[in-house]
Amino acid sequence: MNVGIDKNFNGTLSSSPLGAGGLTVTIIGTGLIGGSLGLVLKDKGLARHVIAVDNKPENQQRALELGIADEILPMKEAIAKSDLVVLAVPVDALFTLLPAVLDEVEDQVVMDMGSTKESVISAVVNHLKRGRFVATHPMWGTEHSGPEAAVRTAFVDKATVICDAENSDEDALTLVKEIYKSIGMHLVYMDGHAHDLHAAYVSHISHITSFALANTVLEKEKEDEAIFELASGGFESTVRLAKSNPAMWVPIFKQNRENVLDVLNEHISQLRKFKSCLEKENYEYLQELIENANGIRRILK
Amino acid sequence: MNVGIDKNFNGTLSSSPLGAGGLTVTIIGTGLIGGSLGLVLKDKGLARHVIAVDNKPENQQRALELGIADEILPMKEAIAKSDLVVLAVPVDALFTLLPAVLDEVEDQVVMDMGSTKESVISAVVNHLKRGRFVATHPMWGTEHSGPEAAVRTAFVDKATVICDAENSDEDALTLVKEIYKSIGMHLVYMDGHAHDLHAAYVSHISHITSFALANTVLEKEKEDEAIFELASGGFESTVRLAKSNPAMWVPIFKQNRENVLDVLNEHISQLRKFKSCLEKENYEYLQELIENANGIRRILK
Repeated sequence: MNVGIDKNFNGTLSSSPLGAGGLTVTIIGTGLIGGSLGLVLKDKGLARHVIAVDNKPENQQRALELGIADEILPMKEAIAKSDLVVLAVPVDALFTLLPAVLDEVEDQVVMDMGSTKESVISAVVNHLKRGRFVATHPMWGTEHSGPEAAVRTAFVDKATVICDAENSDEDALTLVKEIYKSIGMHLVYMDGHAHDLHAAYVSHISHITSFALANTVLEKEKEDEAIFELASGGFESTVRLAKSNPAMWVPIFKQNRENVLDVLNEHISQLRKFKSCLEKENYEYLQELIENANGIRRILK
Repeated sequence: MNVGIDKNFNGTLSSSPLGAGGLTVTIIGTGLIGGSLGLVLKDKGLARHVIAVDNKPENQQRALELGIADEILPMKEAIAKSDLVVLAVPVDALFTLLPAVLDEVEDQVVMDMGSTKESVISAVVNHLKRGRFVATHPMWGTEHSGPEAAVRTAFVDKATVICDAENSDEDALTLVKEIYKSIGMHLVYMDGHAHDLHAAYVSHISHITSFALANTVLEKEKEDEAIFELASGGFESTVRLAKSNPAMWVPIFKQNRENVLDVLNEHISQLRKFKSCLEKENYEYLQELIENANGIRRILK
């Protein structure tokens, strides 16, 4: 099946280096995000051939076994053979890897899928091949990691943020947009600075809250069995993200440190309001705080 | 279908006032919890006849329309006609309602489904009919409320806590146990004090966190559209509980004030550790905190 690019493409395909039979794609980093993209690109017929590059040999091998990729190559050779190079590595690695990838690029398109954007964009702002790069963040993930965590149902009906689109070449941008649309995502445009601020609110703080909640429970509650027995859906949904991989999240918090600190301070001060209500037995104000929180219904169906 | 009590019952049914063709059950409070129980008891053939008692006339009417109940009666008449009386009202109402219900009881069984246990149990500790009462808390709920929120799939594979079981008459306890087992729940026994402490950890703190997180986002982020577009599954799962009804939750926090304050203080201090790591750029300790939080995998599959 080849439903994606050809069908929806309204850009500059004829003048691009890309053929009509699907792309050759290198995915650098074949974990949860890169692995899921490989599966989806192959399922949709968007990629004719996927090459895996991963600094962990066991991940490369698993990518082949799981059908994420067709071939393993060293990075330089992989890039040379590809139409599209996708970087799906932790954001600290991205910071140094992206310039190195662009150094190897002729007219290939390069995109990243990182959770922070401002610093990675600034790392290549003056690179000769800046135009070949499209900065993206698909707003999808799970608390699991590694190639085994990759799923074919990833990305559907979620948003992808494309940042600083005006600094990407038109054909590169068009290709990346069509890929995301073809895998069922809708596109949102903003600059890297705005992205990082929004991401702190709608993703990063949720993870910190969840990690801290897990530590709270693990700290005080030594009777694991009792937690396990009583934990209902509500507990599970708020603590689920606490299973998330530190190799991914420490670099995110590091790169988005100021925004995350800002939101975290606000969150602690909101929690203190609940604490103060309970201490002072001010149940009218507690009611108000909860009614205000109910306003999230405006945003989340 | 009448698969429940008769089939599994290994107690004192023959000497109880309950017939073999299903119970007549009064449900006081036909919202999310009481309404769901009504649907499930009727689906399973455990209840022959369900009588709704609700101080909101519109809830009573909806309970009839939705098939939760067969009849509406004033409380006193309803109790007189029933084998089992279920109290599914907010925990502040429970505190005064339970003694009033027990005042009307001959040999009916009375159970509550409230989210806090110690105070409601102490409200009837010296009541002449204490033995007819079984204190329970099924660990199931959603963020929705009212009869419309009731669902037939409720309760399955979750735990029900039965508190201070030794103070309930044997036949009353047996009946309540068999009902919960028949609707797919497993039973956990503890005293009311222990229940309230555990509930603070595995349910109440998750709600405070979620309410505070919603307020954090709503406070700082005025561009609702941007949140809506970017919010991914992780955000949604941590903030979902913030839709929960204050009429239910203010009384819970009030009744379990000391335990909730205790856990909330611990949670704020755990969040401060994350804050301190970011402020001091101590990413080694941040990594440790996240690795520790990953330990929640031991408890949540």
